[in-house]
Amino acid sequence: MTIYSSPLIVQRADPYIYKHTDGFYYFTASVPAYNLIEIRRAKTLEGLAHAAPRTIWRKHDSGAMSQLIWAPEIHYIDGKWFIYFAAAETQDFDDNGMFQHRMFCIECDNADPMRSEDDWVERGQIKTPMDTFALDATCFQRDGKLYYVWAQKDPKIFGNTNLYISEMENPWTLKTDPIMISKPEYDWETKIFAVNEGPAIIHRNDKYFLTYSASATDENYCMGMLSIPDNADLLDASNWIKKDKPVFQSDLKEHQFGPGHNSFTKAEDDETDILVYHCRDYTDIKGDPLYDPNRHTKVQSFSWNDDGTPNFGKPLPYNYE
Amino acid sequence: MTIYSSPLIVQRADPYIYKHTDGFYYFTASVPAYNLIEIRRAKTLEGLAHAAPRTIWRKHDSGAMSQLIWAPEIHYIDGKWFIYFAAAETQDFDDNGMFQHRMFCIECDNADPMRSEDDWVERGQIKTPMDTFALDATCFQRDGKLYYVWAQKDPKIFGNTNLYISEMENPWTLKTDPIMISKPEYDWETKIFAVNEGPAIIHRNDKYFLTYSASATDENYCMGMLSIPDNADLLDASNWIKKDKPVFQSDLKEHQFGPGHNSFTKAEDDETDILVYHCRDYTDIKGDPLYDPNRHTKVQSFSWNDDGTPNFGKPLPYNYE
Repeated sequence: MTIYSSPLIVQRADPYIYKHTDGFYYFTASVPAYNLIEIRRAKTLEGLAHAAPRTIWRKHDSGAMSQLIWAPEIHYIDGKWFIYFAAAETQDFDDNGMFQHRMFCIECDNADPMRSEDDWVERGQIKTPMDTFALDATCFQRDGKLYYVWAQKDPKIFGNTNLYISEMENPWTLKTDPIMISKPEYDWETKIFAVNEGPAIIHRNDKYFLTYSASATDENYCMGMLSIPDNADLLDASNWIKKDKPVFQSDLKEHQFGPGHNSFTKAEDDETDILVYHCRDYTDIKGDPLYDPNRHTKVQSFSWNDDGTPNFGKPLPYNYE
Repeated sequence: MTIYSSPLIVQRADPYIYKHTDGFYYFTASVPAYNLIEIRRAKTLEGLAHAAPRTIWRKHDSGAMSQLIWAPEIHYIDGKWFIYFAAAETQDFDDNGMFQHRMFCIECDNADPMRSEDDWVERGQIKTPMDTFALDATCFQRDGKLYYVWAQKDPKIFGNTNLYISEMENPWTLKTDPIMISKPEYDWETKIFAVNEGPAIIHRNDKYFLTYSASATDENYCMGMLSIPDNADLLDASNWIKKDKPVFQSDLKEHQFGPGHNSFTKAEDDETDILVYHCRDYTDIKGDPLYDPNRHTKVQSFSWNDDGTPNFGKPLPYNYE
């Protein structure tokens, strides 16, 4: 079992890795300046640490996509590249006391998504019935249908954000009403802030597992998990079963604080499952943690329990010399 | 001879590596947001790619140290740590059409310079007789005396910046009048912009060699070199001999564009000389290159010619997978 360099990529939060059919791992994440979207690629996970990024989209000078570009994910859907990301018009809070992000989509139909900024077309906002703080969208396909999962504020519900699912008409348009499948309710989901965000989906053992991140983004940040039989109605909230305990959390002794906002990929063997997440290594941050760039991307393999659920273990210690 | 990963550290420009007596390499550089100074350390050069940085100083909200924090260098002088960096009050140009940076110094007397921001004290501006654009200071010691070398604009001289040397009273105060030792004059120093900046010093073969960077920071950016016998009067400009050709430059075929702003260190064997520099890998940049984060830190060994001068070779191609 490969042990990767830890951390793998410094100062990249909300990491997303996609292994494409061309043999490359594609990596994107929030950059510390929150001002652009970059992609890098390498043939190995370790190579991503040295792979030169390419800027493929920049924030606008003003308007809905001009502030705090967060958590891009790159997806390859029916022969085209799509990136989902959250952006805001302002850094001010809204009447709910929340940031004002909405979700946006850009598309590239060049086989090489890193060729040029010119290849990327803006598809606009992913509109949802509620016009509130929304972020961290991901998507997956089942039986030729595309599903969209994201985090959003509902002013009628206590806390920051809940998780929703919809079927999509196309990669930037919802087809069905959003169904809420999780809200912050357990104590480990409501530390300092009541948060469910950063959903990621993995399919195994006749189920979909949906991991997400909960609580404030300090040492309380941790990962929870939902699951659903893979032949169930994905749009029926009652089919989604939530685990009552976190599945991945801080290791205070090893100075691994607030692991989360994960994604999934496969090792170079195309078999071993890899957990991708970010983590901090110190908590005595001056000022707003949002502007402390030291959330670092880590990757580690994980295994499966006899009951068919994933066993993520705990955040690996640093191992560089 | 070790071939290091290329690039070694992505998105760090103006890289500076210092190998300390504690066995660690300390690394600092300009960060893409130009908003803070960070330090990372590792026991190997390769380890620096994975070493988690620590923020040790942040730009002020307003005033002389509030904009465009550039090119920090960390030096260990008489038992204390010092960082020199350039900062500006505004992003506007001055009457000379130049940025408005001045040089500043911060000091830390804790043995571990990464322990906390609280350990770093501001020593203020390094004042020079001319109140003009100044940047990229470095320092070195000879016979117990400390010398300061930097780049500065002289309104009476054509071009952007020249190189100067002074003896220092203490690490943040000049003792002598600045002596200009180089100005942009050759065609390769004056492409698009007439620039001499980013000085770095290495001692070998009874000489000091001073490398610097010239021309615009695109594919024209390259390294020039001065030298002086190590027993000569360092403050007599006529003792400094300038090479009429660049010593390190772009390799267009390998997409290594504008190598420069170098520093020097030693390999893990404490013998092999290492050139540290940044380089771009594409030139079709949208907008201001200053805000394209893709200058990457590279390190490579170099040798010495029979005539006692350094042979830097050319920028190594990328070698990550």
